Amino acid sequence: MPSPRKNILVTGAAGYIGSHIALCCLLSGEYSVVTIDNFSNSFPEGLKRVTKIAQDALPADATEEDKKALEIEVFRGDITLKEDINQVFEAYKSKGGIWGVIHVAAHKAVGESGEKPIQYYENNITATINLLSIMEKYEVYRIVYSSSATVYGAPKQIPIPETSVLAPESVYGRTKHMSELILKDVCDSKPDLWRAIGLRYFNPAGSHPSGEIGEDPRGKPGNLLPLLSQMATGKFAEEGLKIFGNDYPTPDGTCVRDYLHVMDLAQGHVDALAALLRDDIFQNQASGTGFGGSGGKYKAYNLGKGKGMSVLQMVEAMRKATGFDYKYTIVGRRTGDVPDLTADPSLANKELGFTCKYGLEEMARDQWGFNKKYPQGYETKK
Amino acid sequence: MPSPRKNILVTGAAGYIGSHIALCCLLSGEYSVVTIDNFSNSFPEGLKRVTKIAQDALPADATEEDKKALEIEVFRGDITLKEDINQVFEAYKSKGGIWGVIHVAAHKAVGESGEKPIQYYENNITATINLLSIMEKYEVYRIVYSSSATVYGAPKQIPIPETSVLAPESVYGRTKHMSELILKDVCDSKPDLWRAIGLRYFNPAGSHPSGEIGEDPRGKPGNLLPLLSQMATGKFAEEGLKIFGNDYPTPDGTCVRDYLHVMDLAQGHVDALAALLRDDIFQNQASGTGFGGSGGKYKAYNLGKGKGMSVLQMVEAMRKATGFDYKYTIVGRRTGDVPDLTADPSLANKELGFTCKYGLEEMARDQWGFNKKYPQGYETKK
Repeated sequence: MPSPRKNILVTGAAGYIGSHIALCCLLSGEYSVVTIDNFSNSFPEGLKRVTKIAQDALPADATEEDKKALEIEVFRGDITLKEDINQVFEAYKSKGGIWGVIHVAAHKAVGESGEKPIQYYENNITATINLLSIMEKYEVYRIVYSSSATVYGAPKQIPIPETSVLAPESVYGRTKHMSELILKDVCDSKPDLWRAIGLRYFNPAGSHPSGEIGEDPRGKPGNLLPLLSQMATGKFAEEGLKIFGNDYPTPDGTCVRDYLHVMDLAQGHVDALAALLRDDIFQNQASGTGFGGSGGKYKAYNLGKGKGMSVLQMVEAMRKATGFDYKYTIVGRRTGDVPDLTADPSLANKELGFTCKYGLEEMARDQWGFNKKYPQGYETKK
Repeated sequence: MPSPRKNILVTGAAGYIGSHIALCCLLSGEYSVVTIDNFSNSFPEGLKRVTKIAQDALPADATEEDKKALEIEVFRGDITLKEDINQVFEAYKSKGGIWGVIHVAAHKAVGESGEKPIQYYENNITATINLLSIMEKYEVYRIVYSSSATVYGAPKQIPIPETSVLAPESVYGRTKHMSELILKDVCDSKPDLWRAIGLRYFNPAGSHPSGEIGEDPRGKPGNLLPLLSQMATGKFAEEGLKIFGNDYPTPDGTCVRDYLHVMDLAQGHVDALAALLRDDIFQNQASGTGFGGSGGKYKAYNLGKGKGMSVLQMVEAMRKATGFDYKYTIVGRRTGDVPDLTADPSLANKELGFTCKYGLEEMARDQWGFNKKYPQGYETKK
């Protein structure tokens, strides 16, 4: 008997966010996961652990078949090549087909994107176009897309609603904005077939409470939380922590961001998969996309807590979680940083049923949980 | 002795605009032309005639070598495939290299673009990214890009300066806008190397006065002038001419567009190639791009006459040129049409030395010239 689970292709499922999305898909009981990943910034080991966590969560009377449905089929491949994507869809023709896609794979470093724009456009735009082309070929018309709060640039209104002007200020942000525009045009071209939801991530943090999977970037982390967490293992001690500006118009002068637990973020994707089947959310489009209304079924949602935290608040939370005494120096503002990026997540709350269950303390605890258990990340020897 | 001409890769040189650009490159005496074309909407015959016209224009004492330098090397290939582009640059490594690129190849039908967005993004965006990637690999950092007045959408100010808000209202227009943004980001990433000029075309019309090359779209022409010209050969007679709206706020109620002779447009590309070498034009960027200033060397220019002509004026001009008695019916406005799209070309006049030498009468004469001589286009039997 074939599994009653629907097959979801999660691109880049081995990465930090992808692995948590894959896990939430499996934990939902609704979905099986297949992935295509080139492991450019991730490790296959993460996917094995995702399966293990999901299997451990099965009831005691689970069958071998139930366990097997939680295995993640991995296609090692590069989504900038259409033939690599094609092989996945072709292979699944005889396995009930791909029901829907969660497109996570992308290059994601804002600073680097300005230095290597061609690579970023190739990985984030050509790849998205390739994926849509192959999806259309195999008549798979459901997609949830990883967008980013960077599409807003420096927003005029805080908290930021989805209807804000989209004016990204980095190459990375433009790749996300363009991908949303492309998705919208594709949905408009065949309103009876295509359905897509773009999820604009604010600042994901933490990891699954088991500490088995987590954020393991190659080299020095570009983001605050993984850096703080790795520093607590003794790394980057000589370089210390630099805080870019403490003279912003915020309560303590440091930048404010909207951190949310990665398990909440990941669950938002499972919520979005379910929402793809609903007609009502696509009817009042102009309220949600920031594009203005049209006939097609594309809609974008903010995934954030709606509550901002400053850099100093995050350092303090990580100090409590790790016991590490962070030394920092205040240096000048960093080009492109804006004082406050706090989401208005009310649309996702209302239409997707998205909620944030985890608080700041748990984010810090779970960010540290993975690094504490695996100080060398996925390459830690047991 | 190698030719002193610089090698220019003109993508899509067999097409209507590409063939006139190739011709102006050859006529300049400065450039040789190589092309990559998949002949999806064009014929190889056009390129042979370009060479013939250029050879006929040589002085009587021209050598065989002079004639040979006017031959256009054709690589049959698809620029959505990186390896096809790569072969051109690889082949030219031993021939002095590619000096610069004029990127013309694209899908260009506004209406169709909304129906087939994936194809348009693939042909117009993936292809541009591929081209830039291979250019960077072979250290070719000069490019002139075929943009379009559609990047302005419905402009607030007529005539339209380059600093207008860019708000395209079609998939086609978005592919051109995104390509400009990508070019700008690439130029910003390496300001000492990359130089790019985007040329925003208004409405090219006519053909080389010899009538040997011209506009030969597959199927019924989507644009007014080629349709009128083909109608004069007896085609599409039963369907008649439809004019979409005569209640626009224009002198005669029909839409006003900025028609310019394709030889003037093509010469603008030769002007732009020369301008790539100048530093001054890139210094006051904000005045030209509509993006705001930055450190990189990207700049966009309008190519138009700066003088609008209404649909009815064009019908009358074509009646005079062809002697054909056009019957037309006024039907409702067409979605997406705006009343007036007239360029402000003063920036291109001033900084590129771009001028329009041909008038309306010559545009109509030369539009008809090709169809009169070749009623079945390039497939006409002699």
